[in-house]
Amino acid sequence: MEHVIDKTVVEKDNAAREGNLRRDYDTLGEQLERRGIKIDAIRDKVQNFGVAIPSWGVGTGGTRFARFPGAGEPRDIFDKIEDCAVINELTKATPSVSLHIPWDKADANRLKQAASRFGLGFDAMNSNTFSDAKDQARSYKYGSLSHADAGTRQQAIEHNLECIEIGRTLGSKALTVWIGDGSNFPGQVNFASAFERYLHSMREIYAALPDDWRLFSEHKMYEPAFYSTVVQDWGTNYIIAKELGPKAFCLVDLGHHAPNVNIEMIVSRLIQFKKLGGFHFNDSKYGDDDLDAGSIDPYRLFLVFNELVDAELNHAEGFNPAHMLDQSHNVTDPIESLMLSAVEVQRAYATALLVDRKALEGFQDANDALMATQTLKAAYRTDVEPILAMARLKSGGAIDPVAAYRAAGHRAKVAAARPAAVGGSGGIV
Amino acid sequence: MEHVIDKTVVEKDNAAREGNLRRDYDTLGEQLERRGIKIDAIRDKVQNFGVAIPSWGVGTGGTRFARFPGAGEPRDIFDKIEDCAVINELTKATPSVSLHIPWDKADANRLKQAASRFGLGFDAMNSNTFSDAKDQARSYKYGSLSHADAGTRQQAIEHNLECIEIGRTLGSKALTVWIGDGSNFPGQVNFASAFERYLHSMREIYAALPDDWRLFSEHKMYEPAFYSTVVQDWGTNYIIAKELGPKAFCLVDLGHHAPNVNIEMIVSRLIQFKKLGGFHFNDSKYGDDDLDAGSIDPYRLFLVFNELVDAELNHAEGFNPAHMLDQSHNVTDPIESLMLSAVEVQRAYATALLVDRKALEGFQDANDALMATQTLKAAYRTDVEPILAMARLKSGGAIDPVAAYRAAGHRAKVAAARPAAVGGSGGIV
Amino acid sequence: MEHVIDKTVVEKDNAAREGNLRRDYDTLGEQLERRGIKIDAIRDKVQNFGVAIPSWGVGTGGTRFARFPGAGEPRDIFDKIEDCAVINELTKATPSVSLHIPWDKADANRLKQAASRFGLGFDAMNSNTFSDAKDQARSYKYGSLSHADAGTRQQAIEHNLECIEIGRTLGSKALTVWIGDGSNFPGQVNFASAFERYLHSMREIYAALPDDWRLFSEHKMYEPAFYSTVVQDWGTNYIIAKELGPKAFCLVDLGHHAPNVNIEMIVSRLIQFKKLGGFHFNDSKYGDDDLDAGSIDPYRLFLVFNELVDAELNHAEGFNPAHMLDQSHNVTDPIESLMLSAVEVQRAYATALLVDRKALEGFQDANDALMATQTLKAAYRTDVEPILAMARLKSGGAIDPVAAYRAAGHRAKVAAARPAAVGGSGGIV
Amino acid sequence: MEHVIDKTVVEKDNAAREGNLRRDYDTLGEQLERRGIKIDAIRDKVQNFGVAIPSWGVGTGGTRFARFPGAGEPRDIFDKIEDCAVINELTKATPSVSLHIPWDKADANRLKQAASRFGLGFDAMNSNTFSDAKDQARSYKYGSLSHADAGTRQQAIEHNLECIEIGRTLGSKALTVWIGDGSNFPGQVNFASAFERYLHSMREIYAALPDDWRLFSEHKMYEPAFYSTVVQDWGTNYIIAKELGPKAFCLVDLGHHAPNVNIEMIVSRLIQFKKLGGFHFNDSKYGDDDLDAGSIDPYRLFLVFNELVDAELNHAEGFNPAHMLDQSHNVTDPIESLMLSAVEVQRAYATALLVDRKALEGFQDANDALMATQTLKAAYRTDVEPILAMARLKSGGAIDPVAAYRAAGHRAKVAAARPAAVGGSGGIV
Repeated sequence: MEHVIDKTVVEKDNAAREGNLRRDYDTLGEQLERRGIKIDAIRDKVQNFGVAIPSWGVGTGGTRFARFPGAGEPRDIFDKIEDCAVINELTKATPSVSLHIPWDKADANRLKQAASRFGLGFDAMNSNTFSDAKDQARSYKYGSLSHADAGTRQQAIEHNLECIEIGRTLGSKALTVWIGDGSNFPGQVNFASAFERYLHSMREIYAALPDDWRLFSEHKMYEPAFYSTVVQDWGTNYIIAKELGPKAFCLVDLGHHAPNVNIEMIVSRLIQFKKLGGFHFNDSKYGDDDLDAGSIDPYRLFLVFNELVDAELNHAEGFNPAHMLDQSHNVTDPIESLMLSAVEVQRAYATALLVDRKALEGFQDANDALMATQTLKAAYRTDVEPILAMARLKSGGAIDPVAAYRAAGHRAKVAAARPAAVGGSGGIV
Repeated sequence: MEHVIDKTVVEKDNAAREGNLRRDYDTLGEQLERRGIKIDAIRDKVQNFGVAIPSWGVGTGGTRFARFPGAGEPRDIFDKIEDCAVINELTKATPSVSLHIPWDKADANRLKQAASRFGLGFDAMNSNTFSDAKDQARSYKYGSLSHADAGTRQQAIEHNLECIEIGRTLGSKALTVWIGDGSNFPGQVNFASAFERYLHSMREIYAALPDDWRLFSEHKMYEPAFYSTVVQDWGTNYIIAKELGPKAFCLVDLGHHAPNVNIEMIVSRLIQFKKLGGFHFNDSKYGDDDLDAGSIDPYRLFLVFNELVDAELNHAEGFNPAHMLDQSHNVTDPIESLMLSAVEVQRAYATALLVDRKALEGFQDANDALMATQTLKAAYRTDVEPILAMARLKSGGAIDPVAAYRAAGHRAKVAAARPAAVGGSGGIV
Repeated sequence: MEHVIDKTVVEKDNAAREGNLRRDYDTLGEQLERRGIKIDAIRDKVQNFGVAIPSWGVGTGGTRFARFPGAGEPRDIFDKIEDCAVINELTKATPSVSLHIPWDKADANRLKQAASRFGLGFDAMNSNTFSDAKDQARSYKYGSLSHADAGTRQQAIEHNLECIEIGRTLGSKALTVWIGDGSNFPGQVNFASAFERYLHSMREIYAALPDDWRLFSEHKMYEPAFYSTVVQDWGTNYIIAKELGPKAFCLVDLGHHAPNVNIEMIVSRLIQFKKLGGFHFNDSKYGDDDLDAGSIDPYRLFLVFNELVDAELNHAEGFNPAHMLDQSHNVTDPIESLMLSAVEVQRAYATALLVDRKALEGFQDANDALMATQTLKAAYRTDVEPILAMARLKSGGAIDPVAAYRAAGHRAKVAAARPAAVGGSGGIV
Repeated sequence: MEHVIDKTVVEKDNAAREGNLRRDYDTLGEQLERRGIKIDAIRDKVQNFGVAIPSWGVGTGGTRFARFPGAGEPRDIFDKIEDCAVINELTKATPSVSLHIPWDKADANRLKQAASRFGLGFDAMNSNTFSDAKDQARSYKYGSLSHADAGTRQQAIEHNLECIEIGRTLGSKALTVWIGDGSNFPGQVNFASAFERYLHSMREIYAALPDDWRLFSEHKMYEPAFYSTVVQDWGTNYIIAKELGPKAFCLVDLGHHAPNVNIEMIVSRLIQFKKLGGFHFNDSKYGDDDLDAGSIDPYRLFLVFNELVDAELNHAEGFNPAHMLDQSHNVTDPIESLMLSAVEVQRAYATALLVDRKALEGFQDANDALMATQTLKAAYRTDVEPILAMARLKSGGAIDPVAAYRAAGHRAKVAAARPAAVGGSGGIV
């Protein structure tokens, strides 16, 4: 397996940190022992926990106002795969890449080879009918799978079928459908008719799904449509998954909800009714801000994982969520943000594993709200950094991924190899 | 039929207004004629449109900080029925009363007599398991239908069965269940277990439902529980209605949603999937503010009715929503607020009937968003006051209900008859 | 004065509508007479009420996901001025254009000539330091007027000084400063230091302001920065205006606030403390959606104008707000949306003029909340369309601007003359 | 000094925990040493950090729907002081009590004696004009300090003056004014007039303030008023403090803001402009939920303290904020919740002290957003429990306050001594 980052750089950085890490790991091990927890078991679980990287995440993101590219922006899917390889080499937490079609279209053999070179797999395929591709026959300005025009819907359906075909070749096992369809004004669309059309289109896509695939639909409250969206919330998303059939599931993007919504409860409901497909992890303060996972409200991320671990330990029927990051990196090096976000997701997982669930259940049964919530807090505030770092070290990654990455000078190297990207603003305000 | 308000007062007030009303009605009739609309047909529909009054609405409301009673507060359900009679006499828009048990418990014959005396019927029954009744064996402090303790759940179930029994005698045809169950802290309850228990309890209530009754469950995002509620949104509510069976429906209180949520779209979804049970109308700016219908965002109320009229005209299968006001009148005379709120609901209905639906559909099919939304606006900004007033006049009500009510001096009369209520604050801040 | 739209088309369309308009106007006049209002006086005020058009508003807008251009997109500021001329010709409500530098930079004489040809003036100048212009020495990726680097701040200051210079030549009398500065992560910037730097930069701009100019600072809660913005709300904006001096004022964009915020109250406070500079009108349901004014919550727009009219009638000291539309037209013809939005702003003004303020004050003093709010509602639900149309007709505009515009085939004409624009997506998700 | 809790119980509980605590403290000390931090210095600061307890907080709270009292509810201010003593004995973090008048009115000497018996002081005085006291001449139903009626305003002013008088005797040094004034409907009050009247009333109160006192005004977006409040946000609050004078400051209750608002930034602005008076700490998910501090979003609490510590270390001019808890304990034992909330506030303080501020500043200057935010996170995720516990132990408190409290059986004891309180619902829905 090839390495993008010079192994000796990583080894040297690790060497300087390993002594303290081992000491902290052992200390934490003793403390957890007192709470009846084996630290190595937690570390093993963390080692086996992966989260996919979206191909579009390694490029600098932007807003409708402007985009400010960084140095060494990936030029194509092959550059993107290389950047994804860096993330996985250092964190050992991101074993697969999620492609977006048509942006990532390329010769299938080259794609497979490019990924396997770095030991990467392919996660869910993502279709794009929220923007017009060059030379596209019909525009998605007024919708795609729910468009009033049958021809436009058919075009969007076929695009999704093509995504399945590409994914089949690459070994993907899921299709994620997120659409921008909706309306900007009351009356612009008839809610019921648009949803009927959407369901009709989705049924055709579902019909073409291979037996061992899953179909993920993703809800979002608003943006790019600003009055209504076709799949506005988990209620509509649940109906979709029920209407389509057993291979259809709901995908939860943490940033796609109304203000104040209790997201961990939605996660619980979807698990309970066997329709949780997976996640797009990120964080947000206002809307779909697409900030780094855990950067704004780390306790909320923990509470989501508290539900996931609960389901995992209870062997909840059909529980098998897909994990992916979905973020927009506007002011950081995307590789750095993705590395730390993957670590942050693992952190939420590791701390949720520390919850004393037997005690929790007892407090719940006794209506001891104070001790119940303290039981969660006791797990949450445990600093599991040594566990995460040790998991990385054991897997061959970096104790401190950002330090190693910076030491290796990767960004400067790709900046030299890849031409400078042009940013700017389309005058959209 | 008895009258609470002296008919001669109303007649005198009407006489002074009738000339201008007829002129305005005729003028509006001509204008609508140009748009292809028969004004009398709209007026007839308005005349047949009623909205129920909740018994608790005629008393002055309050907040956790304080309650400031007005003069002549109703002392019991019989005073409340009298106040409801006033509202219907003057508006002819509120033909029924919705009882809340145990507050409104009384001898069934006396209740029936009290209502029929004024020509009033009984709407949905409302159970109360969000506060403890005097001498109640087990407390609802930690929940009712979803309580961890089976005995408390059983007590709450039996209370609902009793509500059905009372309603049966009175001629009610529906039970509305809203509970305060939830949690204030992460971890306090297990979401899945609590919901299982809730469903289990509701199944027992559903089993006892007479064949011609409907069961309405009501969702609410928060308050009195401040971290999670068991029936937090329409998604969970829809699952409940599906799990229970064909007589179970979702009730929508306009103030029970997250900020910015598109409520009219939820209404559309529930109609489309045959689970819209009815409404608690009110308005709000922040949370469950329970302000007068249409007082804060009248266009939103219109957009909800735009969905209802669309379903009515399309003869949507199973479409038969119940209408009720559910408001808290803290700074107004509750009778006045309820009269004008009933009128406001009729206003939304009347304006929604004016929408040129054929033109709208054409604009929608042509993606002419501007003209589509203008089609709604043209209906909305029509001042239908003459239609509403004429409907009242024809039905024997008051052209200007508040003016007639004040002229009749009803509040002063009941203030003299009913002892002054004590307000104050429980020190809850 | 030149006309873009063939006058005979407008005249023909008007001729077909004038009869009904006069009838409706007279009828409304009689109705208002009963309420003690002279309809002609209202019409005169509406005729004198103008709202500026932002140059960027006539092009199709977009989101970070995609932009779907329409036919005949303006290629440069001269095309934009022509489109603005169309809006004013038909509505007679938009006498001036607001330029955005550097996008609209051009030879000053040509600009003046282009505008005066159509009888248009120049409203406030707008600087742009939220995106990088081509060949700009230093990037605004990490801020502009509040940037940690003094050189970047200086560059942003100089850009604003240049805007003043350009505006001086053109006859503008105000500079509007909106910046994208802020942060995406806790800790990214020190709030106090960044604000110090911002104030320091603004003081230099203020110092260069001509005596008869005003400086408008605009607050915004979020976007493009997603954790904090430097001028996040009216509180900070007020401090800015106070710190800078008597020529500094706050500009209120209706879409730049937190959910549920009472905007009309902010307007009142700024009037009371003599710091209301003006408005960017638009409407929104979720965030800074930039939808057409009055399209989502028309009552809110009325309530804002209720404050403005109150101040106007009270001759509030220093009250002289600037009015501008600031919208993003993603799914409509921008010219159509801007015409109807200008009309909608006039509608809010006209209805606010109908409020019986003496009665209102009486109800307020008597704590008669019900009648007070009904007094506003009575004005609001008056259909003032005949007043607005008559004002347009008297000023030489179109009774139905959209009908006339479509009849004139303007969009097809410019589509033939202007090359098709390329839309698409930068892969920003 | 008297003790409510049997010292031997605490000592026994401490003894069982001290060994592990010392080990964990030493380990953490070593780890912090590596980061250049002396653990004892942090512990000393924590020991000196206190937060006041509001007298009303020790009773079970409730909502407008119901209140469910617990066992042993305090009957009067003397019971409340005793409960406050328990909190301080075990946490050593809450040295003072904040009184609410008229609820806590009592003989001044008895009050002083009651508090000094337990070594407690008196924090800010709180006036109450949001509910009507028994036998009050004029009602606050329609407002108090901003009421349209001069007599009612005068009554409210005098009540505040009385609060100052009482506080003077008791050694308090501040008056906190929070009012429920506002409106439920558009038009109910004239915003400008109401604010004028408010300012006028406050000026009279300010004039009576002793030289060494501070006046805290508290803003709140909504509730109990649901359309507008007189002091709706920090912008208005800042104006108040500026208009009144140098002894007037803004008080920030963490739950009184619009959804999504960046509260730590408001804190920064108030520090920068020398108007931060202090805090009411609590946590919330939806509105003014008054949940336990740090229970919903602990990172937000940390970010607030990040600003406070920054100001403390920079010796920001005039920086001297008052700290108080203000929570409603509906489902927990109030004493337990207040103990842990005080600890939670100390935790936020302690972790904020761990921030490497020199490194942070470097990252900020270099626009290294990733490392800047990681610098905060590194501090935040340090488990400072050993520091907090050691601070308590050193001060004579309990290592585990809840465990000691439960071991001492305090609740059962007061339940035996104090008669059961009656809960219930006023029928407010």
